[in-house]
Amino acid sequence: MVAEIISVGTELLLGNTVNTNAAYLAEQCARLGICVYYQSVVGDNEERLAATIRLALGRSDVVFLGGGLGPTEDDLTKETAAKLFGHALVEDEHTRKRIAAYFERIGREATENNWKQALVPEQAIILDNENGSAPGLIMEEGEKTLILLPGPPMEMIPMFQGGVFPYLSDKVGEAIVSKVLKICQVGESRVEQELKDLIHGCENPTIATYAKTGEVTVRVTARAKTESEAKKLIKPYVRQIKFRFGRNIYTTDEQVELEDAVAALLKQQNLTFTTVESCTGGLLAGRLVNVPGISGVFKQGYVTYSNKAKRRLVGVKKDTLTANGAVSEKTAREMAKGAALRAGCDMAVAVTGIAGPDGGTPEKPVGLVYIACSLRGKVTVRKCQFFGSRRKIRESAVSAALALMRDCILENFEL
Amino acid sequence: MVAEIISVGTELLLGNTVNTNAAYLAEQCARLGICVYYQSVVGDNEERLAATIRLALGRSDVVFLGGGLGPTEDDLTKETAAKLFGHALVEDEHTRKRIAAYFERIGREATENNWKQALVPEQAIILDNENGSAPGLIMEEGEKTLILLPGPPMEMIPMFQGGVFPYLSDKVGEAIVSKVLKICQVGESRVEQELKDLIHGCENPTIATYAKTGEVTVRVTARAKTESEAKKLIKPYVRQIKFRFGRNIYTTDEQVELEDAVAALLKQQNLTFTTVESCTGGLLAGRLVNVPGISGVFKQGYVTYSNKAKRRLVGVKKDTLTANGAVSEKTAREMAKGAALRAGCDMAVAVTGIAGPDGGTPEKPVGLVYIACSLRGKVTVRKCQFFGSRRKIRESAVSAALALMRDCILENFEL
Repeated sequence: MVAEIISVGTELLLGNTVNTNAAYLAEQCARLGICVYYQSVVGDNEERLAATIRLALGRSDVVFLGGGLGPTEDDLTKETAAKLFGHALVEDEHTRKRIAAYFERIGREATENNWKQALVPEQAIILDNENGSAPGLIMEEGEKTLILLPGPPMEMIPMFQGGVFPYLSDKVGEAIVSKVLKICQVGESRVEQELKDLIHGCENPTIATYAKTGEVTVRVTARAKTESEAKKLIKPYVRQIKFRFGRNIYTTDEQVELEDAVAALLKQQNLTFTTVESCTGGLLAGRLVNVPGISGVFKQGYVTYSNKAKRRLVGVKKDTLTANGAVSEKTAREMAKGAALRAGCDMAVAVTGIAGPDGGTPEKPVGLVYIACSLRGKVTVRKCQFFGSRRKIRESAVSAALALMRDCILENFEL
Repeated sequence: MVAEIISVGTELLLGNTVNTNAAYLAEQCARLGICVYYQSVVGDNEERLAATIRLALGRSDVVFLGGGLGPTEDDLTKETAAKLFGHALVEDEHTRKRIAAYFERIGREATENNWKQALVPEQAIILDNENGSAPGLIMEEGEKTLILLPGPPMEMIPMFQGGVFPYLSDKVGEAIVSKVLKICQVGESRVEQELKDLIHGCENPTIATYAKTGEVTVRVTARAKTESEAKKLIKPYVRQIKFRFGRNIYTTDEQVELEDAVAALLKQQNLTFTTVESCTGGLLAGRLVNVPGISGVFKQGYVTYSNKAKRRLVGVKKDTLTANGAVSEKTAREMAKGAALRAGCDMAVAVTGIAGPDGGTPEKPVGLVYIACSLRGKVTVRKCQFFGSRRKIRESAVSAALALMRDCILENFEL
């Protein structure tokens, strides 16, 4: 099966908005084993939109149309699609009621325009919108399918997951099961290298990697007649990947981020922690505070940007700074030890490094970062060399610090 | 003039990469007064790529081709484009030398494949790549122009700015001048509302708004025969916008972010500052540390997540917390005052709020944030109500805190 993605909207043509929806839909199609050969973007112009849809229907089985379902006169995706298929628009009672309920919920009055959103093409499958007023629509004509989705990602994504994924999965006629493994402390090229045989050696399941700063996600996707068969296909690959990356896999849950995994371990072991940051300047604490309920284990953190602050706030020795400099193994160690002591925490994690763009030397180049973790008095220090912009180096340091916290807990408690 | 953007790459079709290049090119075209009616994405497949380019050339004057200029066999953008225009590929001595120099610079050996990148279509204008090995290419045939650019944004953007923008500006036959005004503390809808007459009332200059968390950028762009004429066209609009938003305009320099503007004021007035954060948990300090050289005015910061930390680290009174709660005007005030005192700084900025998703009450709903700024003993407190996810609320609070710092300095020094 071949699908094509058309995104509709002037804001995309003007570059005001980055097309994250297309990437999302493309990734979902890959999961479903549906090929995507083309994506396009077109404005809210009936003639050009109709031409684009016609072209897409000529070369693909399923065409996604994202955006242009709003209540204003500019929005004409639904009208154009219905006209192409020769389907009349009729008012849908169920949708009208949902729109009324939606506006009551958000405490606003629906305008005359909004009722236009209750008009749907005859025979269309209606996808309820839990987060907005425009319903999604699936229209079928012969062998061709048009899937109309709202533009805002927070409306589109839940609608896709709830209604479109099962529809397509059914249409593909196969059960599709996928599993993610999120890996920290290993670069994307090394992950790819280590999985080369698996990535290239097999078509079902497929194995794909996605990188972001400091971590890599591996997705294993299998298709089979039944869900249990697909699961069976995945199993040996997941086991093999777990074997190859071991402890560096921090979760197999799509929703869990690295800070969530670390926070879960801290809570599980009932460990309070503190942070003491130089070059990251608060970003590490800031990222851990992303986790709701972190207050159970996190009480306070320090940003010790100057040498004096390192001495005053967490008791780094003057001699240490003089002899080794602020960016050194010994300073990182004393920062972590001192912070744990002063904050009265089980664990303290320290970051000190050279984020650049200036301040580097041949011995201590930009990107050199020391990370220390003190867990009940035992301190582990890691020396890292990161690359890229000031921002990139600082983000990499945060990820590496989270990974070190995780390692120290796993080691200490033999988890 | 009409342009069209074609992005080439399997990683886009699989959803591994979000197409930020298309947004960038579209925005630049808007600046140049060039219309974009279509964008597309196609894979590294000669037949489909050729069909897509042919279609684009049929309906647009200028076609951008981004990606597929790499050294591997998969990369065939250049070959396909040259074939369509009937231009032969010939080795370019200048490019060959640049490739050799590039590999020497990064300390790697060029592979046999890399020399393929020195082949260029006859008559093509060559755009040197300062950040990679693939040159960009401008090919002209009759009234049509193909512009081939490398895929990685860090190679593409400087090349566009250095070579393509002047080329297109010349082609448009007009001087294009644009000016940005970055506004904080005013929402996008209010900015649009207040500029409605200007946005809709004129075609040259054009006025466009772009929003991100906590701020809005307004861009005024004029086209004229000469640069000085274009500047003259812009002037009254810029003056008018400055008049309407006054002090909320924090810069007219595209490269300057809100934290840069605040840091510049701090340095200019020689004011040291500290941060004391609850719900933002370090993000405010982390954002200010984005600014290289901030160490001149920033020495240390506090993350006081628990009530006890607010008391211990910055001396908030127990009674204040008991009587008013951690999220209150009075607590924010004492946090700022105490932090300034303990850190021995001229200025301290405090943030305390409810980031959610839990912890809200009817009196103190999720999104309620108090921000306080103490400047040489004088404390200003702002009560804010933000909306959205935990992450969004925290980012909004950081922007609001930066804006408050800025206001306090401007007021105090009558700037």
